[in-house]
Amino acid sequence: MIQKLAEKIKKSHAPICVGLDPMLSYIPEHILKKAYGEFGETLEGAAEAVWQYNKAIIDATYDLIPAVKPQVAMYEQFGIEGLKVFQRTIEYCHEKDLVVIGDVKRGDIGSTSAAYAAGHLGKVQVGSQAYSAFDEDFITVNPYLGTDGVKPFIDVCKEEKKGIFILVKTSNPSSGEFQDRLIDGRPLYEWVGEMVAKWGEAHMGDSYSYIGAVVGATYPETGKILRKIMPKSFILVPGYGAQGATGADLAHFFQEDGLGAIVNSSRGIIAAYKQEKYQQFGSKNFADASRQAVVDMKTDIEGALSHVG
Amino acid sequence: MIQKLAEKIKKSHAPICVGLDPMLSYIPEHILKKAYGEFGETLEGAAEAVWQYNKAIIDATYDLIPAVKPQVAMYEQFGIEGLKVFQRTIEYCHEKDLVVIGDVKRGDIGSTSAAYAAGHLGKVQVGSQAYSAFDEDFITVNPYLGTDGVKPFIDVCKEEKKGIFILVKTSNPSSGEFQDRLIDGRPLYEWVGEMVAKWGEAHMGDSYSYIGAVVGATYPETGKILRKIMPKSFILVPGYGAQGATGADLAHFFQEDGLGAIVNSSRGIIAAYKQEKYQQFGSKNFADASRQAVVDMKTDIEGALSHVG
Repeated sequence: MIQKLAEKIKKSHAPICVGLDPMLSYIPEHILKKAYGEFGETLEGAAEAVWQYNKAIIDATYDLIPAVKPQVAMYEQFGIEGLKVFQRTIEYCHEKDLVVIGDVKRGDIGSTSAAYAAGHLGKVQVGSQAYSAFDEDFITVNPYLGTDGVKPFIDVCKEEKKGIFILVKTSNPSSGEFQDRLIDGRPLYEWVGEMVAKWGEAHMGDSYSYIGAVVGATYPETGKILRKIMPKSFILVPGYGAQGATGADLAHFFQEDGLGAIVNSSRGIIAAYKQEKYQQFGSKNFADASRQAVVDMKTDIEGALSHVG
Repeated sequence: MIQKLAEKIKKSHAPICVGLDPMLSYIPEHILKKAYGEFGETLEGAAEAVWQYNKAIIDATYDLIPAVKPQVAMYEQFGIEGLKVFQRTIEYCHEKDLVVIGDVKRGDIGSTSAAYAAGHLGKVQVGSQAYSAFDEDFITVNPYLGTDGVKPFIDVCKEEKKGIFILVKTSNPSSGEFQDRLIDGRPLYEWVGEMVAKWGEAHMGDSYSYIGAVVGATYPETGKILRKIMPKSFILVPGYGAQGATGADLAHFFQEDGLGAIVNSSRGIIAAYKQEKYQQFGSKNFADASRQAVVDMKTDIEGALSHVG
């Protein structure tokens, strides 16, 4: 799957991932009105609105991008109805041949991580039958519990030819509170990065490992260091756009060949029509605004990468 | 809710939490056979078996214990059908007046943590209506992202009078890989513990904070230190029984009045009938074996605590 991701990035010239993190406040009035009309102001109504919103954005962008990253929390908040749409969104993205990165940030003791791995990447055995519950291609994983909390995910990746992105340095303002603390003179995120590199080297696709890392675009200098520490790992880079990072911040996350990283933008793409820059589209044409935002993001990153190497 | 938990522990003389972490391999053949007979070897069939198993264990133990801790991964692996049973289990435990600790170990950047907090502890707004999706009383939270990943949970706890347990030192063998690394001469878990204490002191119930901590029973010496660092925080202690810790290991996690901690046992209680010690019950009477395991655990902890103070 890491090979598929790398090839799709090469072909599309777009190391871009669209974060499908729908909030009801992003969804245009006409979609909400229709969904509530049909299902009432219920969890089912909210889920229907999220689905229609996602579908329109996927339809408008799938030919430009290699991957999407649905954030499960945005679905989980609506309970069962929301999670049905999470599942449906993944299925629909697969129909469109998009690589799906489930942003679930799971991680627990071994036996529990094994259950998460089965539910999100692998299969669960029921008597003589095996079922894939959510069936993402990649998921994000939290490293706080150490190797035995991560290994069950790696084992399932090996079997299913899928992958994970392990949180190394997150994009949020307080990520440094623990992640930046110095251990033997080096920040915790470097030690986590070294473990990712170690796990990664043992689990290689053709040119990249299927054990990747999450490093926030909001910390470009950190990206530079971590790129060197984890030479075989793909880096998933959140924090572009709404969280404040720009194209110029991104160059360090890539290898000299312009590969090795994929940049996520959520709000900046899915709610583009709310920005002044795209207001000419209007809320009815919100998906066209999202498409334009992808085109602009691609140009911004291409510009930044042209200065590399 | 922390007050309710403390009072229920005092009344039951049982600082015990039953971990509702059902694996299909724990479930007796007669339950599996009936569920598969009705729904086939499907995700629905597996979910039905999990539900019948949970219900029997809850019915056999609820009058002895203050709280349960369902581990969401064990439900999530069966997808939507599994999560329906997670929800149904929480509802049923509430009917039995049990405190429900959702072991979800969520944690993300601020806006995402807010969505998890709404879905698990609070309410999500849909138009003019508000809905509780999963409605646990407490959940577990991962601290790797720092304050702004934790604060949305605290905000919802304040509003809903609920609580969280933050991972400080986990019970698994490799928890030390990152958590034990020394920062300015002290292990990372102490720094996390200090943050828990700081957050906790600002958010107090009557005598305990509603910001608690997870500290594994498998590391009793660590428990001793963290008990002092977080004097106002309840400690949720996993790792008793199947993970290897015994009553004697537990004394340090409690205050001198025998309060301030709650010890979880999952497999040791819910799959008690599989142990040699309880084999006389037989698989048909698995729930009675679970009840006896709770009684024995209570005696074990009482014995350990009688040496304290």
